[in-house]
Amino acid sequence: MSERKGTLMSVREDVKVVDATIRDGGLCNNFGFSDEFVSALFRTNVKSGIDYMEFGYRASTKMFDEKEFGKWKFCKEEDLRAIVGDNHTDLKIAVMADVGRCDYKTDFLPKKDSVIDMVRVACYIHQIPAALEMIEHLHGLGYETACNIMAVSQVSADQIQQSLQMLSQSSVDVIYLVDSYGSLYPENASELAKMYIRAVEGTDKKIGFHAHNNQNLAFANTIETMSYGLSYMDATVQGIGRGAGNCSTELLLGFLKNPKYNLYHLLIFIEKYMKPLRESGVKWGYDLQYMFTGMLNRHPREAIEFTTGNRSDYAEFYKSLHDVY
Amino acid sequence: MSERKGTLMSVREDVKVVDATIRDGGLCNNFGFSDEFVSALFRTNVKSGIDYMEFGYRASTKMFDEKEFGKWKFCKEEDLRAIVGDNHTDLKIAVMADVGRCDYKTDFLPKKDSVIDMVRVACYIHQIPAALEMIEHLHGLGYETACNIMAVSQVSADQIQQSLQMLSQSSVDVIYLVDSYGSLYPENASELAKMYIRAVEGTDKKIGFHAHNNQNLAFANTIETMSYGLSYMDATVQGIGRGAGNCSTELLLGFLKNPKYNLYHLLIFIEKYMKPLRESGVKWGYDLQYMFTGMLNRHPREAIEFTTGNRSDYAEFYKSLHDVY
Repeated sequence: MSERKGTLMSVREDVKVVDATIRDGGLCNNFGFSDEFVSALFRTNVKSGIDYMEFGYRASTKMFDEKEFGKWKFCKEEDLRAIVGDNHTDLKIAVMADVGRCDYKTDFLPKKDSVIDMVRVACYIHQIPAALEMIEHLHGLGYETACNIMAVSQVSADQIQQSLQMLSQSSVDVIYLVDSYGSLYPENASELAKMYIRAVEGTDKKIGFHAHNNQNLAFANTIETMSYGLSYMDATVQGIGRGAGNCSTELLLGFLKNPKYNLYHLLIFIEKYMKPLRESGVKWGYDLQYMFTGMLNRHPREAIEFTTGNRSDYAEFYKSLHDVY
Repeated sequence: MSERKGTLMSVREDVKVVDATIRDGGLCNNFGFSDEFVSALFRTNVKSGIDYMEFGYRASTKMFDEKEFGKWKFCKEEDLRAIVGDNHTDLKIAVMADVGRCDYKTDFLPKKDSVIDMVRVACYIHQIPAALEMIEHLHGLGYETACNIMAVSQVSADQIQQSLQMLSQSSVDVIYLVDSYGSLYPENASELAKMYIRAVEGTDKKIGFHAHNNQNLAFANTIETMSYGLSYMDATVQGIGRGAGNCSTELLLGFLKNPKYNLYHLLIFIEKYMKPLRESGVKWGYDLQYMFTGMLNRHPREAIEFTTGNRSDYAEFYKSLHDVY
């Protein structure tokens, strides 16, 4: 149980790289990626051997004004098809749907009529029953499903265990360990990984990991939890994602030994698209303010405000985080 | 042997934080730190609870022209005393001396006449006999001594074992595991850490770790190897150091639970001194070119040239690294 799976030299065929660039990166630019950017990323992912590409959220158009967000907040079928056609590639298409923020009963076609392969259901721990209802509905439509339980670093082990037990008896295909606040260290991330693995033993369910880079540990936690058997590994190009961002795809591809993964094409994409994106003012990545919220196991919202306010009074900000508790 | 020492909540009194900002950071600016900078860092380290401060190298003035380097390449006694006086603080003073690049027989006073507490002897594996001679001489003068065996990621386990055996029978106080190329992952860094620990069992010698951040793993490798019993942990402010730099002191202090460590004063220093340093053009830190040399387990010299040349053709550079092998 506590053994590592494979070695640093071996190929783990069960490992899947899930590119969440547009989805988590969309939180940095209100999903305002150009079609050219998304198309180029799709083609790059195909060439790089990436296994899944998450295009964004399928959020409720009743709850969110389409004028206020880019199209990848909603991931309509026609917008996906404009990029991927009928998707005659090995790259699978994923979208995320938040419990309570989507109209899953009306907004998802049967799988046979959709280019979407996987729906990832994101929820907080108290929403597990609602997530299960969504998962069974989407499974019934023919989709692969994942459940991303967020913010587990603030949840008791008992609650996690109970949720995992409920999910292990459901139709879900993949359960995600999510380090929402970037507060986990390799040591406790690995212990949680083992707990998740144990919970699905005897089933064919897989466990994934979604990192945040608040303490510059996103890549480390990704490869450490993977070494204990996690297999659906989220990454984004140059780590783009809310606040401190996520595990960088380029670091992960550089680590993986499976010859199907190819770093070169990703580097071309980075040169051509990521540099201009950053220069256009889109902000993400490790900095001290995110380290503070990570080490304090808190939502990064104050750190994001610090960043958008162009502040650099780190010491004062650090002090204030202790005040408000 | 394979057990972690302490928990994420416990205080490890054996842990020492070694600030190598001026020494490794000096490789980024030719040791051109102002006296004000070094003085402020000294006072900050005292307030932050740092255990050792390494001021630079004590290099041979016969081999290196004093006009071409800042004074911290040489760390003369009078220059150290200009900053620390007689050092009536709990912060210990260290300098580094490279095998073959110093005049250790003439350039070190007896400890009773020096403010230096520890001399760290840096060597490659084939220089271990020369390092041992230096260590015994410096130990005889009354100094604490450390041996930093560089570039062990390119050395066979046999050679490392033999070197550790020789060192374990010497007067050295601390042996350092050094990830010169930033090529180690938490998984193999931990295995090496356990090998070093085993080699000194039954002695009172300590093992340290010096990280490089090529793959954004400097902090992760530092806390992982520490968890298996390593205790002298190198760090630099904002990770300043050659190429991709080192483990950031602020991340390490944020992690450690010993109440003697204080992050606040370090943040004040960062605001006042590190931001202007970066703005003055001094370059360091994680970027793709360093990731490549790290994953290929190579000296970062080509990556440093890529950086100083202000290049951003990552894909071409990556390809060229494969060519030249």
